[in-house]
Amino acid sequence: MSETKSGEVRSEVRDRTLLITVDRVEKRNAFTPKMMRELAEALTRLDESPDLWVGALTFAGPHTTAGLDLPLFFGPGAARDADRTPEMVDPFALARRCRKPVVAALQGITFTVGIELALAADIAVAAEDARFSQMEARRGIAPFGGATFRFLQRTGWGNSMYHLLRCDEFGAHEALRCGLVQEVVPVGQSVARALELAAEIAANAPLGIQATKAAALEYVQHGEVAAVARIPKLRETLLATVDFREGLASFVERRAARFEGR
Amino acid sequence: MSETKSGEVRSEVRDRTLLITVDRVEKRNAFTPKMMRELAEALTRLDESPDLWVGALTFAGPHTTAGLDLPLFFGPGAARDADRTPEMVDPFALARRCRKPVVAALQGITFTVGIELALAADIAVAAEDARFSQMEARRGIAPFGGATFRFLQRTGWGNSMYHLLRCDEFGAHEALRCGLVQEVVPVGQSVARALELAAEIAANAPLGIQATKAAALEYVQHGEVAAVARIPKLRETLLATVDFREGLASFVERRAARFEGR
Amino acid sequence: MSETKSGEVRSEVRDRTLLITVDRVEKRNAFTPKMMRELAEALTRLDESPDLWVGALTFAGPHTTAGLDLPLFFGPGAARDADRTPEMVDPFALARRCRKPVVAALQGITFTVGIELALAADIAVAAEDARFSQMEARRGIAPFGGATFRFLQRTGWGNSMYHLLRCDEFGAHEALRCGLVQEVVPVGQSVARALELAAEIAANAPLGIQATKAAALEYVQHGEVAAVARIPKLRETLLATVDFREGLASFVERRAARFEGR
Repeated sequence: MSETKSGEVRSEVRDRTLLITVDRVEKRNAFTPKMMRELAEALTRLDESPDLWVGALTFAGPHTTAGLDLPLFFGPGAARDADRTPEMVDPFALARRCRKPVVAALQGITFTVGIELALAADIAVAAEDARFSQMEARRGIAPFGGATFRFLQRTGWGNSMYHLLRCDEFGAHEALRCGLVQEVVPVGQSVARALELAAEIAANAPLGIQATKAAALEYVQHGEVAAVARIPKLRETLLATVDFREGLASFVERRAARFEGR
Repeated sequence: MSETKSGEVRSEVRDRTLLITVDRVEKRNAFTPKMMRELAEALTRLDESPDLWVGALTFAGPHTTAGLDLPLFFGPGAARDADRTPEMVDPFALARRCRKPVVAALQGITFTVGIELALAADIAVAAEDARFSQMEARRGIAPFGGATFRFLQRTGWGNSMYHLLRCDEFGAHEALRCGLVQEVVPVGQSVARALELAAEIAANAPLGIQATKAAALEYVQHGEVAAVARIPKLRETLLATVDFREGLASFVERRAARFEGR
Repeated sequence: MSETKSGEVRSEVRDRTLLITVDRVEKRNAFTPKMMRELAEALTRLDESPDLWVGALTFAGPHTTAGLDLPLFFGPGAARDADRTPEMVDPFALARRCRKPVVAALQGITFTVGIELALAADIAVAAEDARFSQMEARRGIAPFGGATFRFLQRTGWGNSMYHLLRCDEFGAHEALRCGLVQEVVPVGQSVARALELAAEIAANAPLGIQATKAAALEYVQHGEVAAVARIPKLRETLLATVDFREGLASFVERRAARFEGR
């Protein structure tokens, strides 16, 4: 078997959560074009399936990823990621975006696209041994997967330039301090914790959650005026759902709601 | 007296500060349409009165608010907040906005619109017992009062999604960590501290302060290019004020300035 | 010598870094129009020289700056900063901007334009004795050098209003907490640390670094849609550089890259 054929991205349904696992442990999960396409397929499934409400993006073994397997993407005869088609959800959220929330679990080496995939997700959990580096400029290029502005959306201008321009390696607590990740957990618990967070999200009305993500996206894409203008339609749509009637009933009856996503 | 008639929003002038108090302690300050209209009236008064330079938005009793009294806004025969007219300042800052700074004092239960009213203000102080939850999606809907983008303006994408999507309950120190509030104070001191911060602001030139808030707003509404373009007019206007002459004189004479707001 | 003639801004080449030093120690580095023009000249040199890849903006003596020497800019017969021409790089990054990264070293009194010059830079290091105050509104005006939106870009709405509206004085650790600076170092080490950070940046491919800064700027100027649209051109340009070939070769050969900036 050719080395470039190794590696896969698996998906598994856990109640309302799609558990996605990137697995090429023998190469520290360095992405091949095939793996990137499989990840796009998994996210497309999450986006399109009415029964899946949240995604957990996880990585097998001790490391998140060493990044792209560069020669396979950029070397002579590189396939690039041509296998990925524009109709699929883009794992970097630069083209078609996943409307459902995604929680990323990070550990060990988390380089280049490892950070960018987490930035394209919504919430990130890091194990204490996580080692981050957005080091593209050390290799003569720059981040092409959205880090140039998404690092900024999470951490502000100063903190993002502090890491993007130096291409330094930094740890989980620095990532927490500056807002890149939201929780630091003991080594070995990042996946389990991401699944817990996903289950928390899945307990809420999925249309309300998706509307929240869409409204926040409107703000980063078009600014506050556009985000404000979107609210009346958002309100009208959600107030007409079955889930809102259930939510109001559960409030009056002082019980947990049972949502259906419609 | 019908229960829906209970609750009021009071205002009191303290030097240059309008102290606004939301009071429906027996219902943990759950907002009625009447209370929301009274809050709009108070903020309109603050915005329009030349002698009032800062607002302090406070809540009577041990809690900020349990949120909207949902059945009164959304239930059968709900009055909604039709009493509130578009000419008034919108407490959620989605329509007409208050141009004067507002400092919010939070404590105990601070749910849904409690967070959104603080987000529509400028600075927030939380007592150590504050319990935050933006839990609309637990009830089948989503935040309609601006949290979807203002939580993000304060805390970044990761931290805002961490709380908006989970609808979790979190404490004052987590709110401080992620930038939702600016100070945590002992229980019972949130209102006093908000008044102190308001007095600090009121010691400065009110036109300069309002121009600062307006310029920051321009940025979140229209981006940096628009914010830069606004500076020459801002500069020209402020340099022509009486308060600037006083400020320059006080600088030369090494004394505190006495501003008039013109 | 007239007092208004004192003060200068010096530049010195240190490998790939332009070390810029603001020096008017006897007046706590209060800026004269002449010094502001010299700073613009230094930043223009940095921007235009192919051999200079990073700037370090530093201040002689125990203080960053007391701010503008107000009477010289705004008093009777003020020259303002008319000496500065629009073709030069604007130290406040409101007009022509420096495309190369700039690291600022701050210590002691860091008032008004001291903060704004650091905000117009990319990364800031503060000595433990740094004392910050954006106090323009105490003098009857407002920040005109970009603080109204750049404080917000780094620290979020709540934290920026907390300092911009109060015009309070705050220390290095508060600046670190809210994201205004990225490191706090012992007194006397701010310049040395800024030079270290500059050298770290200069080890990376300069075109990749400049592209990263430009892409982040696109986001704050025009929002995420514009930033995403810029990526294909960015990618195409960088993949065609000599430095990328070197970067890929160094990756395959497991050695450090030697970049040329083309």
